Amino acid sequence: MTIPSGMTEATFADGLAAMRDVVGAEWVFDQPADLNTYRDFYSVFWGEPEERLASAAAAPANVEQVQALVRIANERRIPIYPISTGRNLGYGGSAPVLSGSVVLDLKRMDRVLEVNEDNCSCLVEPGVSFFDMYRHLRESGSKLMMSVPDPGWGSLVGNALDSGGGYTVAGYRGHWEAVCGIEAVMPDGELLRTGMGALPGSETWQQYRLGIGPCLDGLFRQSSLGVVTKMGFWLYPMPESMLSASVSVMRFEDLEELVRIANELEYGNVFNGMPGFSSPVLARENPIVMSMVPEPEVMNAMVAETGLPAWSFASNFYGPERVVREQWAYMQSRFAHIPGVRFAETGFVRLPLTPEDMERIHKPRFGIPSLEIFSVGSRGYGDFNPSDGHIWFSAVIPRSGQGIIAANRVMRAECERLGLDLFMFVPSVTCWTRSFVLFAAVPVYKDATRNRELRDKVREVIATCASHGWGEYRCPPAFMDNVMDAYSFGEHKLRRVNEAIKDALDPNGVLSAGRYGVWPRHLREGRGA
Amino acid sequence: MTIPSGMTEATFADGLAAMRDVVGAEWVFDQPADLNTYRDFYSVFWGEPEERLASAAAAPANVEQVQALVRIANERRIPIYPISTGRNLGYGGSAPVLSGSVVLDLKRMDRVLEVNEDNCSCLVEPGVSFFDMYRHLRESGSKLMMSVPDPGWGSLVGNALDSGGGYTVAGYRGHWEAVCGIEAVMPDGELLRTGMGALPGSETWQQYRLGIGPCLDGLFRQSSLGVVTKMGFWLYPMPESMLSASVSVMRFEDLEELVRIANELEYGNVFNGMPGFSSPVLARENPIVMSMVPEPEVMNAMVAETGLPAWSFASNFYGPERVVREQWAYMQSRFAHIPGVRFAETGFVRLPLTPEDMERIHKPRFGIPSLEIFSVGSRGYGDFNPSDGHIWFSAVIPRSGQGIIAANRVMRAECERLGLDLFMFVPSVTCWTRSFVLFAAVPVYKDATRNRELRDKVREVIATCASHGWGEYRCPPAFMDNVMDAYSFGEHKLRRVNEAIKDALDPNGVLSAGRYGVWPRHLREGRGA
Repeated sequence: MTIPSGMTEATFADGLAAMRDVVGAEWVFDQPADLNTYRDFYSVFWGEPEERLASAAAAPANVEQVQALVRIANERRIPIYPISTGRNLGYGGSAPVLSGSVVLDLKRMDRVLEVNEDNCSCLVEPGVSFFDMYRHLRESGSKLMMSVPDPGWGSLVGNALDSGGGYTVAGYRGHWEAVCGIEAVMPDGELLRTGMGALPGSETWQQYRLGIGPCLDGLFRQSSLGVVTKMGFWLYPMPESMLSASVSVMRFEDLEELVRIANELEYGNVFNGMPGFSSPVLARENPIVMSMVPEPEVMNAMVAETGLPAWSFASNFYGPERVVREQWAYMQSRFAHIPGVRFAETGFVRLPLTPEDMERIHKPRFGIPSLEIFSVGSRGYGDFNPSDGHIWFSAVIPRSGQGIIAANRVMRAECERLGLDLFMFVPSVTCWTRSFVLFAAVPVYKDATRNRELRDKVREVIATCASHGWGEYRCPPAFMDNVMDAYSFGEHKLRRVNEAIKDALDPNGVLSAGRYGVWPRHLREGRGA
Repeated sequence: MTIPSGMTEATFADGLAAMRDVVGAEWVFDQPADLNTYRDFYSVFWGEPEERLASAAAAPANVEQVQALVRIANERRIPIYPISTGRNLGYGGSAPVLSGSVVLDLKRMDRVLEVNEDNCSCLVEPGVSFFDMYRHLRESGSKLMMSVPDPGWGSLVGNALDSGGGYTVAGYRGHWEAVCGIEAVMPDGELLRTGMGALPGSETWQQYRLGIGPCLDGLFRQSSLGVVTKMGFWLYPMPESMLSASVSVMRFEDLEELVRIANELEYGNVFNGMPGFSSPVLARENPIVMSMVPEPEVMNAMVAETGLPAWSFASNFYGPERVVREQWAYMQSRFAHIPGVRFAETGFVRLPLTPEDMERIHKPRFGIPSLEIFSVGSRGYGDFNPSDGHIWFSAVIPRSGQGIIAANRVMRAECERLGLDLFMFVPSVTCWTRSFVLFAAVPVYKDATRNRELRDKVREVIATCASHGWGEYRCPPAFMDNVMDAYSFGEHKLRRVNEAIKDALDPNGVLSAGRYGVWPRHLREGRGA
């Protein structure tokens, strides 16, 4: 049995008994078969002593029960680790960062508290999954569109708190960016509402975000400062249509201009869908693992030989048909000066979707949760067994052609140097406003020897990226200390301020210790261990 | 001479001497004539013992000097109060919240550190005014548009930190919303950079906002937690054109639908300019002070008699000409079912502006700073003398027709009950995404008796608005405690969390004590005094 370090079995048993009194015995789990479901099945420590394991789990049904559980934990110094649905495989799943923590499993708090059609917003509990919400919207005949990650099995709240992203419209698809209003149980068990939620009787909690004074919402992102029990989101009014199009260029050296103009068009509201950059000529052999970008003359020769574009920029336009058609026409006019540029309308769909459209579209682009992406992994890749797993490596790189090429080359060189095999690699994911994120899925094994090597390699990649000024925006628990270490400006002032706030709000350090490299005082010595 | 409460003159003099050593004797001010310029000329305590006065001011030239000043203050427990340019008249100007504070006047830190044309962003110091920035953009031939408040004499940093707003495009005109990346001298004198700025060598500080772990940016908004020394902003690529249009309806009862559809069109990206709602029939007599909204039949009779619309919705479309024309056409189709609806294109301007256009446009809508708005006050109003002043009362109200009408009626009834004279009153300012803010300018006098009455009246209005669920998003120092008091959910948990963070980051409580109702421990007893 895993119990929290430094705690007597008696104290722990007493804590679990108190938790059972709160939530009912059937909602506290401490048997191996139950706890197995809280393991991170993609853990890079799988089966090793360092694997982060829950000592127990408790599933509260409401806010009051969360408050009671947090107080019980505080009184006995039992570490707790809240999860919403625990579905962020590749970033830690439902396992705690600190072994021995009791997982607070919020899956039972699954109420859609409000969908406001006029305000185009919703208020949900943390256990509401994207599938739950989608069903709710469709069954109520809603005219609102949500944004979903891919796969879409997670929770709106959990995904936003982790800064997950979707595929729809700017300002909505960076899920944290669409948050408006948070309720959280603080580490002392008291309840906080941010923004206008702090004003009793306010009807604007899901309208004006900031309220008065310092805006505390950011403290709950990727954090250990509160258990979020309610979260508001802005939703996008279902558009009349969606047009998809691509702009392709035939020379290595055109990437810079392609990205520069695309950026300007996005920031200038000429298109609102998610931009995508790819190299059709390089994608010939493997569309999901981008190979090393060759020298200009080599790439241009490949283009001449195959007739495939060197680079392609794909975008989507959500809106009234006559508007999106003009936006697309204007976009073409802005790229027309590039020699050999090719334009293609790749899709046009009216909403609501017909059953036929449903079959042919990429569902997440229409806010429809799906599990189809798992088919990528299920085919296996190289010597990667689909029953193993993967972690995500996601670094923020400069939003430019140079940024894409540099990130690609450095990452490919690192993989070659380290013998690291990626089974997905895209150097410019764009869920988040104005950002490029290099995305790579790194295979993880059910084999300790290979995983030990893997961990060292990933730490090297983190360091190499940091030396280029690229930092991860999110990571699995195994690397949180390493990633936070790279954000070192001012002798790690970011971390030190975070830790000062941590100590002030959670003096006993019971909540989500170690999350994103922020440790409570009594565990700070062991950082990075 | 005003010196900080509880401090010996010797300690204070020693502190000023140390500050002189840092910034040079000519940049520390403690003579009455100098300190007079740091008074809040619109103070509701003008000339009374409670007027918040600076004991001295020090003007550092760079970050290192700010750090040194903050350390000097900390060692001697001298309260300090940073201002950028101190131009937010009506919200406190350049006077500290706590009398006796030394104002840190950041006006000398006026460098535009970067304007990145490809990234459509800038990085500035706090002393950069909107006029400075506008001049910089025009002289460099920039293709970027900034957003400016009206009047535009303040600082980009100071205005954003106060959550000021402009008149341009959604996501840019709520100035806090356009911030990307903060550098701040913390109360301990150390330097923090948020977001990707925490990663040395990063080129994405003005791209990806959140960095890793908890996002601390919100802590600096309307706060007392740091001296912001650098701030990044996203800028809007200069659009090809701007079209202005209005939709007017002829019945009292159409307001609800007018607002509802306008909201949906804005949230759905059909227009990106600032929406405005007004009542032409009620504005006949006084366009800047909205009178009480009458009963439906009365208003409809006024419409019948005058031919003026009951309500009007004005909007702007920024973008390529062919796009904005289609957006406007689509907008009309969405309102066409309202009986008697009238549509008008009220303006169309191509950018860059011609000299002739410059003369006829509303400059702030094109990101051009201006002082023309002062002409409103200079005409005087009622018994208000233009050499007196005003404060702003700004409450967040529901974004709906009902919201406008309820806010109007409650505010008008309060003014009548209390004998309060507004010289500007708009119940639906929309600088901030998805929000309606009731805006009223309340005259302030150079007469203590009248101001004493005024303060009581304003406190009553704050309480009345709070009882309706409406809270201020910003306020003058005199009312910060009252406003924060209204955000009372969870026995004032918002304030208590803020104060816990305050104590953790500023244990000596030297920085901007009392700002937005957050007091350091040793002054908490005196709150609201």
